[in-house]
Amino acid sequence: MTDQVSSDALRTVLDGRWAHVREETRRQFARQDVRPDPDLSTEDYRAHVTAALKTLVASGRPHTGFDPAVGGEGDVGGVVTAFAMLAYGDLSLLVKAGVQWGLFGGAVQVLGTARHHRTYLRRIVDGELLGCFAMTEAGHGSDVAHLHTTATYDPAAEEFVVHTPYPQARKEYIGNAARDGELAVVFAQLVTGGTSEGVHAFLVPIRDAGGNPAPGVTIGDDGRKGGLNGVDNGRLSFDHVRIPRENLLNRFADVAPDGSYSSPIGGETARFFTMLGTLVRGRISVAGGAGAATEKALTLAVRFAERRRQFSHPDTGAEIAVLDYLAHQRKLLPALATTYALHFAQEQLVGRMHDLQAPGAAPAGAREQRLLEQSAAGIKAVATWHATHTIQTCREACGGAGYLEANLLPALKADTDVFTTFEGDNTVLLQLLAKELLADYGRTIRKGNPRGVVPLVGRQLAGVLAERTGAASLPRRLPGRGIDLSDPARCRALLEVRRHDTLATAVRHLAPALRRGADSFAVFNAAQDLLLEAARAHVDSTVERAFADALTRVADPGTRALLEKVHALHVLSVIDRERAWYLETGRLTATESRTIRPLVDRLCGELRPHARTLVDAFGIPENVLACPMLDDEAWAPGPDTPVAPTTDRIETG
Amino acid sequence: MTDQVSSDALRTVLDGRWAHVREETRRQFARQDVRPDPDLSTEDYRAHVTAALKTLVASGRPHTGFDPAVGGEGDVGGVVTAFAMLAYGDLSLLVKAGVQWGLFGGAVQVLGTARHHRTYLRRIVDGELLGCFAMTEAGHGSDVAHLHTTATYDPAAEEFVVHTPYPQARKEYIGNAARDGELAVVFAQLVTGGTSEGVHAFLVPIRDAGGNPAPGVTIGDDGRKGGLNGVDNGRLSFDHVRIPRENLLNRFADVAPDGSYSSPIGGETARFFTMLGTLVRGRISVAGGAGAATEKALTLAVRFAERRRQFSHPDTGAEIAVLDYLAHQRKLLPALATTYALHFAQEQLVGRMHDLQAPGAAPAGAREQRLLEQSAAGIKAVATWHATHTIQTCREACGGAGYLEANLLPALKADTDVFTTFEGDNTVLLQLLAKELLADYGRTIRKGNPRGVVPLVGRQLAGVLAERTGAASLPRRLPGRGIDLSDPARCRALLEVRRHDTLATAVRHLAPALRRGADSFAVFNAAQDLLLEAARAHVDSTVERAFADALTRVADPGTRALLEKVHALHVLSVIDRERAWYLETGRLTATESRTIRPLVDRLCGELRPHARTLVDAFGIPENVLACPMLDDEAWAPGPDTPVAPTTDRIETG
Repeated sequence: MTDQVSSDALRTVLDGRWAHVREETRRQFARQDVRPDPDLSTEDYRAHVTAALKTLVASGRPHTGFDPAVGGEGDVGGVVTAFAMLAYGDLSLLVKAGVQWGLFGGAVQVLGTARHHRTYLRRIVDGELLGCFAMTEAGHGSDVAHLHTTATYDPAAEEFVVHTPYPQARKEYIGNAARDGELAVVFAQLVTGGTSEGVHAFLVPIRDAGGNPAPGVTIGDDGRKGGLNGVDNGRLSFDHVRIPRENLLNRFADVAPDGSYSSPIGGETARFFTMLGTLVRGRISVAGGAGAATEKALTLAVRFAERRRQFSHPDTGAEIAVLDYLAHQRKLLPALATTYALHFAQEQLVGRMHDLQAPGAAPAGAREQRLLEQSAAGIKAVATWHATHTIQTCREACGGAGYLEANLLPALKADTDVFTTFEGDNTVLLQLLAKELLADYGRTIRKGNPRGVVPLVGRQLAGVLAERTGAASLPRRLPGRGIDLSDPARCRALLEVRRHDTLATAVRHLAPALRRGADSFAVFNAAQDLLLEAARAHVDSTVERAFADALTRVADPGTRALLEKVHALHVLSVIDRERAWYLETGRLTATESRTIRPLVDRLCGELRPHARTLVDAFGIPENVLACPMLDDEAWAPGPDTPVAPTTDRIETG
Repeated sequence: MTDQVSSDALRTVLDGRWAHVREETRRQFARQDVRPDPDLSTEDYRAHVTAALKTLVASGRPHTGFDPAVGGEGDVGGVVTAFAMLAYGDLSLLVKAGVQWGLFGGAVQVLGTARHHRTYLRRIVDGELLGCFAMTEAGHGSDVAHLHTTATYDPAAEEFVVHTPYPQARKEYIGNAARDGELAVVFAQLVTGGTSEGVHAFLVPIRDAGGNPAPGVTIGDDGRKGGLNGVDNGRLSFDHVRIPRENLLNRFADVAPDGSYSSPIGGETARFFTMLGTLVRGRISVAGGAGAATEKALTLAVRFAERRRQFSHPDTGAEIAVLDYLAHQRKLLPALATTYALHFAQEQLVGRMHDLQAPGAAPAGAREQRLLEQSAAGIKAVATWHATHTIQTCREACGGAGYLEANLLPALKADTDVFTTFEGDNTVLLQLLAKELLADYGRTIRKGNPRGVVPLVGRQLAGVLAERTGAASLPRRLPGRGIDLSDPARCRALLEVRRHDTLATAVRHLAPALRRGADSFAVFNAAQDLLLEAARAHVDSTVERAFADALTRVADPGTRALLEKVHALHVLSVIDRERAWYLETGRLTATESRTIRPLVDRLCGELRPHARTLVDAFGIPENVLACPMLDDEAWAPGPDTPVAPTTDRIETG
């Protein structure tokens, strides 16, 4: 049994590289009351959040992520870390801030050039110019290359004509659109001289100084949503709206006054993926927000479960804290262990992004950029699904109390719900990741150069896979048999085995059919399960390695021993979830597999006394956790606790 | 491949015994617009739902479930069927109606006697007297025997003194309490002559004619909740509130003016379980409401998935409907198959309840009553978790559109969320079911009389299990090996095997430790996973049998062939979910197990063309399904669909 470890010691490990930012953000939370009345009307709530956005400006935090040229510090990692912590408070503010500075401001900074930075960036950073990131269309969300909004160049007027050709091409679910946005970054097919050059970003004013829709712009309101009702999502349609040629965000491509098109990046696809690469920060930020929300939910549920008692001990008659029930531990503690794992994976991801994107960083190689995008896509998907499941579980674990808005869990659930489908639908993200893994595998065989500038897609991916049969003989590199599952190092090997084998299985299924020239949609579609499984296994492995890396940085033996148990519980939970796969592939025998659940039970029991410490280590400010179900006064026992029948005294009649 | 079957033919099968009630309820829906503005304030929304409750009275539907003596028809099954269909509309109205007529009115009818019926029942049925069912306390939800509210008899005044001894003993989450309730059925420990006789129900006026709290009654408001905000949940505390002796609901026990206690039922436990038996209708109603909500969510998601296209076919360039993706089919179609299975299980359950409870029914034997309660507890747990998971999946399957309140899915998710923890927490219900199954097993061995009046609990259950070692040799009655998993009959046998084996495993784990005299809490706690697994397997088997029974009633060969595929997909989904167990126990070989997922994929493909028919068969009125994401106009293509790059044309740059 591990000795009692302090939550401060754990917090140092969790806080990591941006500990100073975390501490400062905690202090900011402690000074303010950000909780809105849950009964505000949508319009009042939106006004409340817009006002809170201005308060955030005053804190100076949003500036820090931008370039020093516009008053920032270029602290990319710091700003993403602080952003995620906004999930401790009102998630509408988190999303509104993400739209304004991450998506809208980020697009202007990354896709624009000096003329755009000069004109707009300072006002964006200062929250004086609110704007939209208008990429998604009603009929085209994940398939960004197929957006149907057009921006057609008119050389006579030196203007682009932005147009929504039919209802499903309208921009939809756009934050800041329904109430506050003045300017939008609109993604549209650039057409010049009769040729479509693919998707580009344009600055389109959507409201005039009086706050009315600009001429030709129709603004709709998405109205009440499942959550995040402090964010004014809406829809935008354009009826031949004219904008100056200079409103093209022209860092990666430009149109000359005569309409001729040029780009420093050869190939439409390369340009497209370069522009999409700007989304990586959004995905990482969403994963971080999901993580912080999950940590808050678990803190609430664990504290409640220590307090709330239910049923009596049959021998002593004393009532039992619900966290002492194995079933309750199984609900919360493996989820807590995985939350730790994702916390470390997120920390690592933020660090990699910072090192690639911060001012003064060495120019990112295409390979590093793509690896970062792969990790971001995978961790975003896994972290947001984990948030949805875990917050749901926490709500249920608190019973009726968990259903009251006053106890904070309903808003956490409702507000984070959309995280699984925005900034990239999770299923689509995992499929894209799987296809990249396949392509990397194919290219490794072909050229020994696993990662090109852009992923292989469509027929080319099919071609590479059909060409190579080597996949079927991908070595079973790691031993899976005869494993002592109480040894975490051995368990880690099982995760690696799964990562290798699931990819090999996918290749083995795809290659023969593709070689035969079968309909490639049908072939890939029939293997979708296998692709998702391979992607998931890849992410599981990435996440586990981040946790293991973090363990190596822990000096204090007691703290490390406790974190090793948390790590073991996380890894065993993954193996438990996937144990059918291990059995089907012969990587575990039935006898070995049957040892998993008792081991999980044992670890739950060992971590039970540390549960409170483990959640307190997240360091969520007490003022954002305060709620009636955790209020000391509500739990005061009365002097005259009555005699009540215990199950012990019940007769069979 | 099955020929195209009409949704009408399927509907006849689904509608079953109360088809006439379903048709009438559909007609009532078609005549009204029940959808409230999602932006109503809590107070306005409550007023809206209270008004809708009066409209429901005017329809005459609530009356039909009550005895003819108070103007009803005694159509217990019909009223529960119609009640569940309220989930097609506003779930706040469903819950408000359930509180008023199911719980409050039901308790007065079932626990009260002629004097209560005469005084109150007609006004309750007519919605003139709104009331509460005040059982749950803040500190005691599932553990109803431990309620701490007291009702102490004062023979001098011939009154009971109802009292809340400390904060956690307050009545909590009580529907109708915060705004509308005048009278409450309060469950409290009856104390007379210094002796506690256990939990009984009392009628306590909580508001005076002016709507103010009655003297000594403190009413709190639970405020905004995660959903169901049209229901005025609140808390009730009593400070020595005096009520006449006659306010004891005295069907099963009475206190004479001198304070002497009497009951026709010998034994406090038997009385307690008899009174709890009145909860069965509530649980069955919640399961029904969960089912109807799930059916609506699937109808919305399947219709959207047929319409919404995403990404192009790599060969033809045509965009592909998302329901044509295997991953999307795997999200929706197995859930749809299980929804069918639960629909038939619910239909059977309602029929059994009706046959036991309708006026004129033969007096229910204790055994039949307990079997009904077991089924109700198990199906309530499984159906409400299925609703939570499936509605969540449907929301995600509709992406951003699924997050807009206008598209109906967010309210379905939020409003049904609490179903998993009210009317009995699901985990607790499954544990109780498991303990009953264990006790039945123990008593079968001991007396050949499997089911007594009340379940064995606490030390007695431990005693029975410790006594018998026979469990370890519970025969592996059914063959599990060498099974052709494409044969549904063989798959059914696998479900039966699991039902038997999981129970035997639980007994094998419990018996030796209990014989050794180990701490019985520790022993049962360590086996909680096994108990929950046994209960789940029992319910899976019950549900499957209901589906199989329904199949035997289908005359038309085409309809039956289609339903057989749905049945097969449901059964295979269960085996798929539990395949680790089958592998660990040797009931399936790895080779056999690996055939499951391809079979599920194949069935998804075969059912894909019938998906729309299968959801239309639920017969949900079109006016409650109408929403922007399914609006024809929104999907009108424009004349000038632009040229856009397809993945086909993408180059690797």
